[in-house]
Amino acid sequence: MLQQDHNTYQGFRTPGIRLTEPLTPSLQSHKTEQLGDRLPAVHEFDKAHLVMLIEEGIIPRAHGTAMLRSLRDMEESGIQPGRLKVQGGVHSGEQYLIRALGEDVGGWIHVGRSTGDLGEVSRRIAIRAHLLKYMDALNSLRQALLLTAPRYFDVVMPGYSGGQNAQPTTYGHWLSMWACVFGRDFDRASELYTRVNQSPAGGAILTGSDFPLNRDRTSALLGFGQPMPHTIDAIHSHDSECLETCCTLAIHASNMMRLADDIQLWSTSEFGFLDVADRFCGTSSIMPQKKNPEFCFRMTISGATTVGAVSTALRGDAGPTGMPLAYMHAVEEALWKVFPDLTQRLAEAADLIPELEVKRDRMKTVAESYWGQAADLAGGIVRLRGLPWRTAHQIVGILVRLSYERGIVPTSVTPELLDEAANLYHGKDLGLKRDELSDLLNVEHSVERRTLYGGPSPKRASHELKSFSTKLEADQHHTTELQSHVDTAHADLESAIDTLITSTPE
Amino acid sequence: MLQQDHNTYQGFRTPGIRLTEPLTPSLQSHKTEQLGDRLPAVHEFDKAHLVMLIEEGIIPRAHGTAMLRSLRDMEESGIQPGRLKVQGGVHSGEQYLIRALGEDVGGWIHVGRSTGDLGEVSRRIAIRAHLLKYMDALNSLRQALLLTAPRYFDVVMPGYSGGQNAQPTTYGHWLSMWACVFGRDFDRASELYTRVNQSPAGGAILTGSDFPLNRDRTSALLGFGQPMPHTIDAIHSHDSECLETCCTLAIHASNMMRLADDIQLWSTSEFGFLDVADRFCGTSSIMPQKKNPEFCFRMTISGATTVGAVSTALRGDAGPTGMPLAYMHAVEEALWKVFPDLTQRLAEAADLIPELEVKRDRMKTVAESYWGQAADLAGGIVRLRGLPWRTAHQIVGILVRLSYERGIVPTSVTPELLDEAANLYHGKDLGLKRDELSDLLNVEHSVERRTLYGGPSPKRASHELKSFSTKLEADQHHTTELQSHVDTAHADLESAIDTLITSTPE
Amino acid sequence: MLQQDHNTYQGFRTPGIRLTEPLTPSLQSHKTEQLGDRLPAVHEFDKAHLVMLIEEGIIPRAHGTAMLRSLRDMEESGIQPGRLKVQGGVHSGEQYLIRALGEDVGGWIHVGRSTGDLGEVSRRIAIRAHLLKYMDALNSLRQALLLTAPRYFDVVMPGYSGGQNAQPTTYGHWLSMWACVFGRDFDRASELYTRVNQSPAGGAILTGSDFPLNRDRTSALLGFGQPMPHTIDAIHSHDSECLETCCTLAIHASNMMRLADDIQLWSTSEFGFLDVADRFCGTSSIMPQKKNPEFCFRMTISGATTVGAVSTALRGDAGPTGMPLAYMHAVEEALWKVFPDLTQRLAEAADLIPELEVKRDRMKTVAESYWGQAADLAGGIVRLRGLPWRTAHQIVGILVRLSYERGIVPTSVTPELLDEAANLYHGKDLGLKRDELSDLLNVEHSVERRTLYGGPSPKRASHELKSFSTKLEADQHHTTELQSHVDTAHADLESAIDTLITSTPE
Amino acid sequence: MLQQDHNTYQGFRTPGIRLTEPLTPSLQSHKTEQLGDRLPAVHEFDKAHLVMLIEEGIIPRAHGTAMLRSLRDMEESGIQPGRLKVQGGVHSGEQYLIRALGEDVGGWIHVGRSTGDLGEVSRRIAIRAHLLKYMDALNSLRQALLLTAPRYFDVVMPGYSGGQNAQPTTYGHWLSMWACVFGRDFDRASELYTRVNQSPAGGAILTGSDFPLNRDRTSALLGFGQPMPHTIDAIHSHDSECLETCCTLAIHASNMMRLADDIQLWSTSEFGFLDVADRFCGTSSIMPQKKNPEFCFRMTISGATTVGAVSTALRGDAGPTGMPLAYMHAVEEALWKVFPDLTQRLAEAADLIPELEVKRDRMKTVAESYWGQAADLAGGIVRLRGLPWRTAHQIVGILVRLSYERGIVPTSVTPELLDEAANLYHGKDLGLKRDELSDLLNVEHSVERRTLYGGPSPKRASHELKSFSTKLEADQHHTTELQSHVDTAHADLESAIDTLITSTPE
Repeated sequence: MLQQDHNTYQGFRTPGIRLTEPLTPSLQSHKTEQLGDRLPAVHEFDKAHLVMLIEEGIIPRAHGTAMLRSLRDMEESGIQPGRLKVQGGVHSGEQYLIRALGEDVGGWIHVGRSTGDLGEVSRRIAIRAHLLKYMDALNSLRQALLLTAPRYFDVVMPGYSGGQNAQPTTYGHWLSMWACVFGRDFDRASELYTRVNQSPAGGAILTGSDFPLNRDRTSALLGFGQPMPHTIDAIHSHDSECLETCCTLAIHASNMMRLADDIQLWSTSEFGFLDVADRFCGTSSIMPQKKNPEFCFRMTISGATTVGAVSTALRGDAGPTGMPLAYMHAVEEALWKVFPDLTQRLAEAADLIPELEVKRDRMKTVAESYWGQAADLAGGIVRLRGLPWRTAHQIVGILVRLSYERGIVPTSVTPELLDEAANLYHGKDLGLKRDELSDLLNVEHSVERRTLYGGPSPKRASHELKSFSTKLEADQHHTTELQSHVDTAHADLESAIDTLITSTPE
Repeated sequence: MLQQDHNTYQGFRTPGIRLTEPLTPSLQSHKTEQLGDRLPAVHEFDKAHLVMLIEEGIIPRAHGTAMLRSLRDMEESGIQPGRLKVQGGVHSGEQYLIRALGEDVGGWIHVGRSTGDLGEVSRRIAIRAHLLKYMDALNSLRQALLLTAPRYFDVVMPGYSGGQNAQPTTYGHWLSMWACVFGRDFDRASELYTRVNQSPAGGAILTGSDFPLNRDRTSALLGFGQPMPHTIDAIHSHDSECLETCCTLAIHASNMMRLADDIQLWSTSEFGFLDVADRFCGTSSIMPQKKNPEFCFRMTISGATTVGAVSTALRGDAGPTGMPLAYMHAVEEALWKVFPDLTQRLAEAADLIPELEVKRDRMKTVAESYWGQAADLAGGIVRLRGLPWRTAHQIVGILVRLSYERGIVPTSVTPELLDEAANLYHGKDLGLKRDELSDLLNVEHSVERRTLYGGPSPKRASHELKSFSTKLEADQHHTTELQSHVDTAHADLESAIDTLITSTPE
Repeated sequence: MLQQDHNTYQGFRTPGIRLTEPLTPSLQSHKTEQLGDRLPAVHEFDKAHLVMLIEEGIIPRAHGTAMLRSLRDMEESGIQPGRLKVQGGVHSGEQYLIRALGEDVGGWIHVGRSTGDLGEVSRRIAIRAHLLKYMDALNSLRQALLLTAPRYFDVVMPGYSGGQNAQPTTYGHWLSMWACVFGRDFDRASELYTRVNQSPAGGAILTGSDFPLNRDRTSALLGFGQPMPHTIDAIHSHDSECLETCCTLAIHASNMMRLADDIQLWSTSEFGFLDVADRFCGTSSIMPQKKNPEFCFRMTISGATTVGAVSTALRGDAGPTGMPLAYMHAVEEALWKVFPDLTQRLAEAADLIPELEVKRDRMKTVAESYWGQAADLAGGIVRLRGLPWRTAHQIVGILVRLSYERGIVPTSVTPELLDEAANLYHGKDLGLKRDELSDLLNVEHSVERRTLYGGPSPKRASHELKSFSTKLEADQHHTTELQSHVDTAHADLESAIDTLITSTPE
Repeated sequence: MLQQDHNTYQGFRTPGIRLTEPLTPSLQSHKTEQLGDRLPAVHEFDKAHLVMLIEEGIIPRAHGTAMLRSLRDMEESGIQPGRLKVQGGVHSGEQYLIRALGEDVGGWIHVGRSTGDLGEVSRRIAIRAHLLKYMDALNSLRQALLLTAPRYFDVVMPGYSGGQNAQPTTYGHWLSMWACVFGRDFDRASELYTRVNQSPAGGAILTGSDFPLNRDRTSALLGFGQPMPHTIDAIHSHDSECLETCCTLAIHASNMMRLADDIQLWSTSEFGFLDVADRFCGTSSIMPQKKNPEFCFRMTISGATTVGAVSTALRGDAGPTGMPLAYMHAVEEALWKVFPDLTQRLAEAADLIPELEVKRDRMKTVAESYWGQAADLAGGIVRLRGLPWRTAHQIVGILVRLSYERGIVPTSVTPELLDEAANLYHGKDLGLKRDELSDLLNVEHSVERRTLYGGPSPKRASHELKSFSTKLEADQHHTTELQSHVDTAHADLESAIDTLITSTPE
């Protein structure tokens, strides 16, 4: 007989049943170690599915509760070792139960279910868990930024565009920008969460089941928002949990790489704006002077890996419907690596940023030494002399050239030199007064003048900061609620199991 | 004098002002022809900016209205030829106005503005316009799917997983799946729209302006939802309008490629499920039998190009804040190609799908000839004989193997052969009746039995379809409102111009 | 004192030396477990560097040989556990030696070396080792193809273009194509090998050393082709060993995915051309009929992962010279996964292909049932009736349409029907004889007629196959020689160590 | 009758022949404007194919020569307008000839040919032409580098690793590195050329032709190295001309982006090492001080676009053999943009680099101000005091920390401070003499001491430069020979046409 003793149960791929040869080991796809972060979710689905099957009367109550008891036994010695021992990947629950209780009992768990929904359910639960941690870490970084920024709203620094000294802003203004950036990253994550947290359970491999499954109940027990409304879609569409997850993380990683690049550049000797605390830095095995901002390097590694995951996902999700199922393994392998990496980087950044040593004097010196004030000077000429912008701008352009040719720094420029430039342009003096000129070349005044919405003047920046904080609080609250929905479902599942077990004699 | 006669005005990069040599032609970045789809948006921003500057008393009213009149003159002979003639790219407005009105008047337009916000504003407006067309086309395809699907809720076809005949479903069920898929594509586009449709105007190059700009007014005149609340962020963050736009389109393109792959495969001679109407097909220069589903090929081209845009965007958005400004040109070139391409593919699909000729008999024959009923047979055994799933499944596995070994098609299998399989497995007969067996092997019954939420039974599928239609209606309404918000702003802008012009003597 | 007891030596990042705080654990970059496949290469470089330093008299001979002896001690209990225990990553040799022999002795190993060349040398050695295995596996698959193809030079099958039945070829011709494809993959790998197998040793971190290192000697002891001729380039350019390696593998993976897609498609029930041996297949947990070609799925996973590695590499290799050093970790993590995966897939393919069960009758039936003969018919008309190609082609186009409209299969077409088509086209009969027509519609004749260079006629295909075999033999020989060069260097290194140890008292 | 008057010939996709409806315009794939850079190659193939057909007696000689004459007529008024007017894409030759000469004559050109080989031949010829220009531009940049480098072998600058001041090198040494880098880019291009320059002509759509084509002759007339030895491979494998071309260019683009990033960073005010000549720079519309190195920005645009092309190619080359034909259009569109872009950037770089203004004093100041000499000091201690490297290194690490804590610049460090560090480490003085110390802290001495192979000492760098020049000369010669092979074939083709025309009466 082909039925095996339950101690040696090998699963549905037993040679001699449907196929004759044993499967080549390197092609084995149901390996428990390949589950990665899905393992706990597989366990949870096993339990929720059984509860639903018993409640709906689809399987014998005694067998169902025996299986629930057995899964609780497994928990005592650890579900990971338990499932690794029996192998079977997403089918490790069945492997375990048949070995423990025989095929007559354990052979019932798979009613109305398939590798398809096992895979999709466990993947979505695992991604959901990672997303919650990531959203939480994102909020911590936002909080660190919003607490740190106001300390520096009066610290003038050069703003950059195209890599060049552009116009003066403040270090606090720069810091508060990142709260906006990571606020959008949160929004994207939150919208993704809604799409990911839907239940494929009951979709089986594509057509659902001919058993009277209660998809709502399973969905609720697993903490999903609702069951997905189409069984083929539930199993064969990966646009949200695969493609969009990778994209959302890659967009975030790009933002973080930009932040890390700023910190790296500004902490070079040549820039000399920031000093990173020693505990985020390594040194060199031959160059003892080196103080390497390891955070920035690690961020590059994590970011480049995330970008790779996008290409993996977009390449793998190819072919007719039903073909791309397998490649999800490639994306998963990437996600289980990338999610904790990025979450770790967020935690590091939240720790690093408040302690960056800010070199105020150097920032100001650079801000005023390379003509970052030129646009302000042109603007002042427009206001004071009624000249059109372009005329004023061209005159200042000539002035800048003259000052470079003659080695004159901006703060030493005189009204006479400005008049020389004006004459070169259109044959007239400007006649700016010395104090008008010096006001326009003062980088602190430049910042203070920028009181428009979203601008860097300290008062304005403080005002906008409040709205960023309000948004953060709402997002923190939302994250907590999402987590709490999952926790409640988890408790409901355990209590449903308790009810079934206690009401059914062993 | 360096000031030029206004007829020969060359812009702020005139040699002799700030820089001495003329710019190498191949490095010229302010070319009007490079504006692509941003050209009309640059024009709109020119007008809205002037209105705001006049209203706020920042520039002389007479000069301001002269410029508005001049821009309206340009419109008469076409803004594209007008701006191409004077060149200047995003600065073509200034080029035109100075040439037309002299620097004394036209030199005022650029007060409080920079290449930075000109670029960002025009890019966001251009993307917004494309997004609206894309969302509209998406809705048309959804509508076509939802109207076509019910015609085929009773047409049984094989469902596929891993490229193989899996379990029977209906062609209508498959069609309705795509309404879910493209519904998510709509949601992503709509969320992106909210992030894109925010106004960077007034951010200048990063610190905003020291002129008292009214950012709310410009934002409203341009139809944006609101001004962006941080001036550096407004100019230097491209996570939404660049990275997320590319990602959103690539996710959609992946979905469409999957659909095209289904159609391509199912219209091969070997599958023979579908016949594509001739007008979507080409033939061959040597093989006159060829009927090439050109839509599927074009979709591959458009899709692969879109995937490339993601990598371009993720590679380009690199370096410290302020560096990646330039690379937006690379992304734009991709977007102005990809957006209309994908929108065109959507229109073609909405046209093609309702007219696909469906080979019902062939679909049914394939559905019942390769053991797609095996899971149903196992399920039936569970219900009729009270055997555990795994036992029933293994018995059917043996049955399938025997039937292949002996050349017996599923519909010819007898209870005796099933008993032979059962005996091989565990030494017992099953004793299924002939009509029980034939019911379980009937693919139409298989579909009808699947009445669970989201499943393929005709009644169930019709029920879910209603909710898909409800969502579509809401999304159509939302799209209309977004368009109408833009249209209203456009009318407000023109009417503000009218007011200014008529109230100011020429 | 800050110098530590050698038992507790913590490496150059000991707090209190250059930096005060301990490094945040998550940012630690010198972890031995992160070395991946570079670990043995680090060990080899440690030995070769010491041999060179001793031979050149750069370090005290007694200390040098003591270190060599100690490294040999480590080998006895395993270099992996030894280096994992002391940690230090690429510096695990120094960690081990200082702990074993004290800083007075072990502190000498790092003379003239840096993390830079340690990283580059070990990476290139590890990649070289993987490349050799990959090239060998590639040759095995080529051999399998060349041995299998001739068995099927007479098996007519449909050739496909655009997914459609195009013109008849043979299954053997199709098989032999892959020998060409993988021959190019070999050429690319071989050219890459030459660029990778160059020694960065002595480049230190970029300027080389002021100690009189003998770069030729180290290069030779490590089996490299030659030392790299520029020290900055040696350390800071990753175009070959990183970018090109990823690209070369991704091109290969694309080829393999194409092959896997053919096998997958042709083994569907609908095509029915091939049957994959059971040992390469899985089945389903609910659909016992499923026979999933796991090789094809695994190939998709491996391929999509490889494509991701390209994007990781192209994203990471960004920024000014010297910046992208860190990201190599991201690429390495990908490579150590992708190399063995692809090599495994090659071995599986070499095993799977010769055993594919070929359904000759089905292939022939499909080849002759869907007008794959149409081009031959047109060609025959050109030759027999002297009509221009286009005229003949259009007539056959009409014939095909008529035959589909009337449900006539190609082999039942009569000269009269052809004349009807000809008349519809240009009002004349063709008057082809029945046997002329039947010859032109015979798919075996079609193949036999294609005797041009590279074509499918059995005799021609056999002839070309010989040249493919000749190339394979040369490539196998070349691979053997590359391996042997490495092995010889390895032996030379050990014998140089023996000489030093035996000639120096302990 | 369905045959049309030749004036209105619409090609083989005429409605009513094989297919009934006209093709939807947006799906038309045979548009001449889509040929891009392939247009001249299609023309060339038309001529070479005709010559071969006539010479082999496959088509009537009179008709053949009439067609050749007609194609020469077309040349007089331009092949681009001629082919655009008649449309037909790769079939524009046939369209033109049938319109000009009637179907009885022009209907003969397509004998033994297909859209397949028309596409592949013209693509390979177009890529070949681009490759030759690219290789030539690469050589020009290499030459500029090799001529410029020696002027700066004595200009000390800081070398960088991880973005930080690492050890002193020279600006000339840095320049000469790029000759190595671009030398490898040349090698890759040259190897690719060999694979690309093979003739698919005669492969038709996959099985070649049953007409007795002379594939060698066509190959030779088109300047290919040889005909491809397998007809399916010739048409359906795109690993070389598509995937490898994109990869090769992306690797090069990465190298160029690295170079551009160096130039950009080093020309910031903060670094202040280089000044880019004005003609490569733009300025700002509001910040007149801005001197934007437009070359660097353009390089980012070109590079990011190239990276996108790789993903397009890797995504598109998907599906079973024969499917990916269509996507080549996506890759082509990318290539016809990327090739000239990159070639232009190379020309700009070759122009820009020799004229970079080098700020020697600033470079030296930075090189000696931030402890780039630390490794040299440690090395000196090893040599002068016989201490192990690690001991010396740790002492210098402490010294660096003390100097930063106390605000002492490297060149002001005293032997006493060094002894203080040594005592802190291991309780002993080092007793270095003042002049020993000052020698070790001298950055010019540091460079001069680095005489090892590939190192920066002026004499050594000059020596290695010679070998780089030798390689360049060989590569220039090779490029010339490749071009000349193509030119000769072109002349042979024209002369074969002359012979046929003159020997055949009109």
